[in-house]
Amino acid sequence: MSRLDSFIRRLEAQRACLDRAAELVRDLDGIVLELGLGNGRTYDHLRALFPDRDIYVCERQVAAHPDCVPPPERLILGDMRETLPALRPRFGGRAAVAHFDAGTGNAAANLALAAALTPNIVPLLGPGGILVTDPPIEAPELAPLPLPDGIAPGRYHLYRRT
Amino acid sequence: MSRLDSFIRRLEAQRACLDRAAELVRDLDGIVLELGLGNGRTYDHLRALFPDRDIYVCERQVAAHPDCVPPPERLILGDMRETLPALRPRFGGRAAVAHFDAGTGNAAANLALAAALTPNIVPLLGPGGILVTDPPIEAPELAPLPLPDGIAPGRYHLYRRT
Repeated sequence: MSRLDSFIRRLEAQRACLDRAAELVRDLDGIVLELGLGNGRTYDHLRALFPDRDIYVCERQVAAHPDCVPPPERLILGDMRETLPALRPRFGGRAAVAHFDAGTGNAAANLALAAALTPNIVPLLGPGGILVTDPPIEAPELAPLPLPDGIAPGRYHLYRRT
Repeated sequence: MSRLDSFIRRLEAQRACLDRAAELVRDLDGIVLELGLGNGRTYDHLRALFPDRDIYVCERQVAAHPDCVPPPERLILGDMRETLPALRPRFGGRAAVAHFDAGTGNAAANLALAAALTPNIVPLLGPGGILVTDPPIEAPELAPLPLPDGIAPGRYHLYRRT
């Protein structure tokens, strides 16, 4: 499989998981958290999926397409190792969906960052909230969910907060 | 359609067109030209599609994944407005497939660059050679080909040198 094949499959998996998350939380109140803005493509997809929810975006430094920059009041700038703990009083238990894709371009670095951030991501999810993530994440409060049809195991990840 | 949807469709179109080009030139001798290396994903796909052909890559400055950097003897570094004319004595009429994706990230700039380069791309293609390109390209020697099934018109482009 070429890198082009592999990249397309990853993006298809990402989109299918975001779409599935939207279905799963249809009857659940809550905000949406985009943990890592990058070029803003998935943020744009989240806007389309969740037109009626507030979407908050954490990013170290905005480098997105100008059309995909969140309004300043919903943009939380800084290193997520510092910003996420500070969000807990405001957003603890309030997220219906969180999407994590730090997009460092390095699988090992993504995995390490995800592990470091997990204790600060999980408490932001409400009960039944869905975490969609590129790297796998392990926490006692997170139950892995089956991936949408046609998505190979491990290509993207879906969890529900129990 | 979100930017994520649109990006996935573009990549699927790109891959489908490259795959189609490989079928179309199955019985045609010639090298492959990758005009714009970028991150190297399509170069990697071309390597998979054309294991027995020499693939030459034109790029201003290499910024690809280390696994996707062509060997130095097949890498032509520099601005294509200067390097392509210089290739004509060596490769004129010898390319079975050329793929053009300058990837400036700006549709208008891509289109302008494609138009400027067209007179230097076309003579490199042999008779029956296929040009796969992101921006549309117009030249009297190029006949547009139908896109593979499921690819919307204009999302990517295929031409045959008459």
